[in-house]
Amino acid sequence: MTTANPNTAPTVISNDPWFDSYAHRAESMRASEIRALFAVASRPEVVSLAGGMPYLGRMPFAELSEQLARMLREQGEVAWQYGSAQGDPHLREDVLPIMALEGITDAQPDDVVITNGSQSGLDLITRIMCDPGDVILAEAPNYVGALGVFQSFQVDVVNVTMDADGLIPEAFEEAVQAQRRAGKHVKMLYTVPNFHNPAGVTMSVERRPRILEIARRLHVLIVEDNPYGLLGFDGRTYPALRSMDAQNVVYLSSFSKIIAPGMRVAWMVAPPGIRQKLVLANESAILCPSNMSQMTVTTYLDHFDWQARIEDYRSMYRERRDAMDSALHEYLPTCSWNKPKGGFYTWLKIPKGLDAKAMLPRAITAKVAYVSGTAFYNDGQGADHMRLSFCYPTPERIREGVRRLAGVIDRELDTVSLFDTDEGMDAQQEEQR
Amino acid sequence: MTTANPNTAPTVISNDPWFDSYAHRAESMRASEIRALFAVASRPEVVSLAGGMPYLGRMPFAELSEQLARMLREQGEVAWQYGSAQGDPHLREDVLPIMALEGITDAQPDDVVITNGSQSGLDLITRIMCDPGDVILAEAPNYVGALGVFQSFQVDVVNVTMDADGLIPEAFEEAVQAQRRAGKHVKMLYTVPNFHNPAGVTMSVERRPRILEIARRLHVLIVEDNPYGLLGFDGRTYPALRSMDAQNVVYLSSFSKIIAPGMRVAWMVAPPGIRQKLVLANESAILCPSNMSQMTVTTYLDHFDWQARIEDYRSMYRERRDAMDSALHEYLPTCSWNKPKGGFYTWLKIPKGLDAKAMLPRAITAKVAYVSGTAFYNDGQGADHMRLSFCYPTPERIREGVRRLAGVIDRELDTVSLFDTDEGMDAQQEEQR
Repeated sequence: MTTANPNTAPTVISNDPWFDSYAHRAESMRASEIRALFAVASRPEVVSLAGGMPYLGRMPFAELSEQLARMLREQGEVAWQYGSAQGDPHLREDVLPIMALEGITDAQPDDVVITNGSQSGLDLITRIMCDPGDVILAEAPNYVGALGVFQSFQVDVVNVTMDADGLIPEAFEEAVQAQRRAGKHVKMLYTVPNFHNPAGVTMSVERRPRILEIARRLHVLIVEDNPYGLLGFDGRTYPALRSMDAQNVVYLSSFSKIIAPGMRVAWMVAPPGIRQKLVLANESAILCPSNMSQMTVTTYLDHFDWQARIEDYRSMYRERRDAMDSALHEYLPTCSWNKPKGGFYTWLKIPKGLDAKAMLPRAITAKVAYVSGTAFYNDGQGADHMRLSFCYPTPERIREGVRRLAGVIDRELDTVSLFDTDEGMDAQQEEQR
Repeated sequence: MTTANPNTAPTVISNDPWFDSYAHRAESMRASEIRALFAVASRPEVVSLAGGMPYLGRMPFAELSEQLARMLREQGEVAWQYGSAQGDPHLREDVLPIMALEGITDAQPDDVVITNGSQSGLDLITRIMCDPGDVILAEAPNYVGALGVFQSFQVDVVNVTMDADGLIPEAFEEAVQAQRRAGKHVKMLYTVPNFHNPAGVTMSVERRPRILEIARRLHVLIVEDNPYGLLGFDGRTYPALRSMDAQNVVYLSSFSKIIAPGMRVAWMVAPPGIRQKLVLANESAILCPSNMSQMTVTTYLDHFDWQARIEDYRSMYRERRDAMDSALHEYLPTCSWNKPKGGFYTWLKIPKGLDAKAMLPRAITAKVAYVSGTAFYNDGQGADHMRLSFCYPTPERIREGVRRLAGVIDRELDTVSLFDTDEGMDAQQEEQR
């Protein structure tokens, strides 16, 4: 087992005296492929198309520091004190107009639970809903952080097929029926409908009510994870699943991509019974979210034009998406990929015969990093894909990164064709014997 | 079931369509008796001896706001970005001299894991160590937040007797043996050795190596939860269990009481194998601790005389402990209590026949709040005790609170003696029939 700490090299602990004492769930905890990469991929000479860090270079930290200093002078005794397990009421009010942009207009502050990032939200909903052996249906490929949570609760993740319009409704219905015929408890559908991580696709507006109808009819809870919904590039914001169904959807969103991730502040909206349990689970997990972090967010929302900032992010990330797309056209025309309508990621299919996971060390040697598609599956699939992030590097760096990547892929193809020829000859010889 | 949100009245959700869908572990999640009280007990006219909020009125927020503004101006892009799952290396270095005050001199930054408050640390260690039905031994009464975590992981908490010198070593050994004879997996001993919450007692220095010896011999992991260790009132800091044994102790401490709880920053020190799993569990639970919160703490530690602040806290809380003690002598001489050598709490034994839980609504009507002893047991015990906090109210308010409490107790005693007489008469009549 390797450590997830990006600041030290992975180490193996031998002779652990507690080896036989761990819980069964600890067996499934593994360092994600993404984390294990961070140490090397974060060297300045490497163009990292691997991480999902938002770009914060345009954040007005000078003005922000003034406002935060004032907040602390005036409300320090609140900001530094314990708070509510459900989250700061002011912040639970502040998220309502943000959700209204996605058509959620019926939510009340009492429906909202503030979490320590959406990662914690995924942990809480899995904790209250899933026993070991229960089934979660999910798009494949899937967000690696969600896969990690589901595995840590010993849940069976069953893949549902996606296409260019997102999750396929018929595949969802068939998967529920098949699991139930096999005697399994299907607890929820986990979906990232907008600008999917890593697949880059968006669930079509036409499919959304169909998926909701199936979920209602089959009594399957939908967990809608929506960190990127406001980061669409064509001026369009898609209606949240939650905007069409308040009873069967638990909605998660986050400030990580529309403000910044360093405060670890996100929120969930859930129907009343589930919301009550989420608050209790939040209290058990972390006692309460940080008042300091929450009041940093409310200070930002109250004093800055957060919508203008989102607009700026949209145009900045669109420019980077375009840089990625045109560099791929220029340098890697033999690959195929989607052109995402928003978010952070391009999902690249590499030429037949190549293995994205095996190739990675050679890519890093060539000073470019990506995440192998295998990280986003729980069943060994994905070596024919890689995830390329365009969120953090500048357009120039993206272009340079793709150029380097093309060099690596070309060399791999040369090697593969050499082996192919050898294999072909071996096969011919085999036949001739 | 009631909501844990202190800002709204408890509500009951009827007709929850997901009623049959929850995980088994969700059944044990209940709003703590403490939380349910917050709404009423926090009204200004009530003297609250209930909560465990540290007093922050002497914190130099004006200077702090300057330093934090500067931090954000100079390092905003780091403070607002994702960080390491193990925690900020700078902070993991900064905790070493703090632990040295308790005799821990061999810990390295790589042994440290930063958690989202010690509550999250308790969640993580239980998550990686305990399957449902495993046993955790713990002092009784016990910290209510730990009880909540253990229950949420469906662990059996087995009480070990304490006396005025803390956990009794022989009782610990016997409990392990008895559980093992019954075929149970004893995974750990959970202990708060210093200035126990709620019992106020401290494990004697003489007992510490004996408990460690038993734990080593019987291969039971010790989880040492130590939020109050530096808040001793007689100038004495006790040696941490971890200072005597690096291999069999997981040590938890927190900035909540020595700085402030609003950042939700705490830390754990664990042997290598366990530490690796804690980092993975932290990543699964929250991705990473908040950089903003961690850098707020490092800014404080680097720019302020944190040891002088701890000294000030010690003398402030000692004064309040003394106010509590003398008010109890004056107003409630028929009760018994310990005089704690540090920390936040006095554990009061009330006169025979009274029920601290049943009496609480009448106390709140009389404008004084406490926590019933029943909150700190998992088996219904504790109605003969109450926890009185002296951390937050001023000495004058503490005195006034105890005066009001004495009035409530006196009236209860009158009622009890009345009923006692009635019952006696009923019994006489019964005999005469």
